[in-house]
Amino acid sequence: MTEPGSETAFDLLIVGAGLIGTSIGLAARHSGLRVALLDTDPARASLAARMGAGDVVAGPTPARLAVAAVPPAQVGRTCVQLLESLPATVVTHACSVQSAPAAEVEADAVQNVQRFVGGHPIAGREVSGPAAASADLFSDRPWAVCPLPGSASAATDAVVDLARICRAEPIVLTAGEHDELLARLSHVPQLFASALAATLAVMTEDETRLAGTGLRDTTRLADSDPAMWGQIAAANAGELATAVRAVAEPMLALAAQLESGEAVEIDEAVRALVTRGRAGRAMLPGKHGRRAVPLAVVRCIVPDAPGSLARLFADAALFAVNIEDVRVDHAPGQPIGFAELFVVPDDRDRLVRGLREREWTVTEGADEAL
Amino acid sequence: MTEPGSETAFDLLIVGAGLIGTSIGLAARHSGLRVALLDTDPARASLAARMGAGDVVAGPTPARLAVAAVPPAQVGRTCVQLLESLPATVVTHACSVQSAPAAEVEADAVQNVQRFVGGHPIAGREVSGPAAASADLFSDRPWAVCPLPGSASAATDAVVDLARICRAEPIVLTAGEHDELLARLSHVPQLFASALAATLAVMTEDETRLAGTGLRDTTRLADSDPAMWGQIAAANAGELATAVRAVAEPMLALAAQLESGEAVEIDEAVRALVTRGRAGRAMLPGKHGRRAVPLAVVRCIVPDAPGSLARLFADAALFAVNIEDVRVDHAPGQPIGFAELFVVPDDRDRLVRGLREREWTVTEGADEAL
Repeated sequence: MTEPGSETAFDLLIVGAGLIGTSIGLAARHSGLRVALLDTDPARASLAARMGAGDVVAGPTPARLAVAAVPPAQVGRTCVQLLESLPATVVTHACSVQSAPAAEVEADAVQNVQRFVGGHPIAGREVSGPAAASADLFSDRPWAVCPLPGSASAATDAVVDLARICRAEPIVLTAGEHDELLARLSHVPQLFASALAATLAVMTEDETRLAGTGLRDTTRLADSDPAMWGQIAAANAGELATAVRAVAEPMLALAAQLESGEAVEIDEAVRALVTRGRAGRAMLPGKHGRRAVPLAVVRCIVPDAPGSLARLFADAALFAVNIEDVRVDHAPGQPIGFAELFVVPDDRDRLVRGLREREWTVTEGADEAL
Repeated sequence: MTEPGSETAFDLLIVGAGLIGTSIGLAARHSGLRVALLDTDPARASLAARMGAGDVVAGPTPARLAVAAVPPAQVGRTCVQLLESLPATVVTHACSVQSAPAAEVEADAVQNVQRFVGGHPIAGREVSGPAAASADLFSDRPWAVCPLPGSASAATDAVVDLARICRAEPIVLTAGEHDELLARLSHVPQLFASALAATLAVMTEDETRLAGTGLRDTTRLADSDPAMWGQIAAANAGELATAVRAVAEPMLALAAQLESGEAVEIDEAVRALVTRGRAGRAMLPGKHGRRAVPLAVVRCIVPDAPGSLARLFADAALFAVNIEDVRVDHAPGQPIGFAELFVVPDDRDRLVRGLREREWTVTEGADEAL
């Protein structure tokens, strides 16, 4: 294979200027790459360009690398079209599913498969569109890179480079491995979050008043885009079915036990389930793909007024304490709220003493893992 | 019924100085109540007392109201003992399940049922123990108050008053209504969070590297205490079985559809599920039991150094913008992180302009509901 696209005007062609495409464009432009933006919606491409994500082009334009950042159902076809119309361009995509678009490429563009490598930056938000994009969306996040058996190693390298340019952590694996893992790590959590939230749809406001904060976290994913998830599920149906059963079948067995078991058996079964869940959760990487770091928390009352958080942080800085994370809990218009400041454990006592000296009302909290 | 316990030295007897009992004590002491603390573990009671939650007593001590803040499996028996040993004291508890302890009281202390009213402050944390307690744990949270048919209205009033003293929102309903609602709003989300997290326990670290941030939220509840949830499940087994089936059975039907359906049917079924989930999630009250308030978000790069969040908040305060909420996303020791500042939509443009003037790197975000 000749060095792909070395004489073209653009380093990167992004097809689809949504949240992901625009964020890739912003990150690539930050690294000095020449980026072309193509979108069927001229307003969207133009907004992305005004944000600094690249230059709008009117059709497939040669580049060293092209990324199809389009909805899941269009990824395979878009990649085939790019491979056919841009004979020197490596083509990748940014899809939550890998095997289905790979199969389309192998069926319809097999003579160009050496220039194709699947990709999936594992980042996103409940919001979508170019306005929510940012150059740092992928920072320290995993970016799956999925070469096919026929992909050239130079093509794989080009996608790995793109992931690094976006400050993500490239992880090379097969399309099949990706789809099986993502079914368990992403697609099934999405469907169960939606299923749990769906049970609320038939409740009255009086009834949901009794909801605690845990339900809000558990169902946060349920705010996601129905059209996108319909397409992902259709494209990863087999793996998804297996992974849904792996959760739903034991839960039905548990329901049977809840109906007919002795209290002591139920207690034991649920204790075992929650214990396994704790073990599983300990397997999750910390923020930015690291292991969880145990931080100490300092809880503090904060008046709901402009500047009060600023005063709190300024006072914390007086004692040379770095706030690693913060949670604020108050409703707009309420007179007071509460801030939880997360600091490395060695800094906690100094922070508590210091804030109390500065007359903050501190409720010292317990150690808590992030 | 005579005014219960009007001549006793204590207003409130708290049995069990854990997270909930100690927090109730702190809130009651803040309101000037005389609080007695009883715990089988003297060290725990003593820690709660040193935090200001009340005075340690050695055994059941007369008070106007007693709260059994003990593990779920002990609540019924503890309430029976309190009703029998303190003949002028109203007895309530703080248990996630209502019917089972109510049945114990009706079986073993029916002659005293007029002085018994169930209670459940719906607040908590993944951490436990008195050190994590705070006087504001219940602020603006719901507090279920569950009188039995035989409860005196003065007893119900006493528990409603306690909820108000803790700045919670009392909600009076029957024990049966409570257990059916909590199964759906709390117990089932807990079990599915654990079941999802449990599937991670058999994965390798290499595999879980591909997890996104959504999985962390969906499984946050899985950090909870196995022993407590074993007891809750055993005590609410019937309602829980129904509510588990209401989620698991449609998911198994979906799995069958994923296995044999056409892509277009799968797409439609999942789209419908996610759409119902969005509708359900819209039913959730906002923070502090209010409807969600749409806030605007401003995203900003923050160096990981003492004082940088302080500078950011101080600069925001210069423009008289009140930060309603904040999320910080960085790992300790990483050179930079990102802060998302949530403000009322009218303040967003002023904040973005102001921060840019002060040379912050702002990635303007989209509107997002809290």
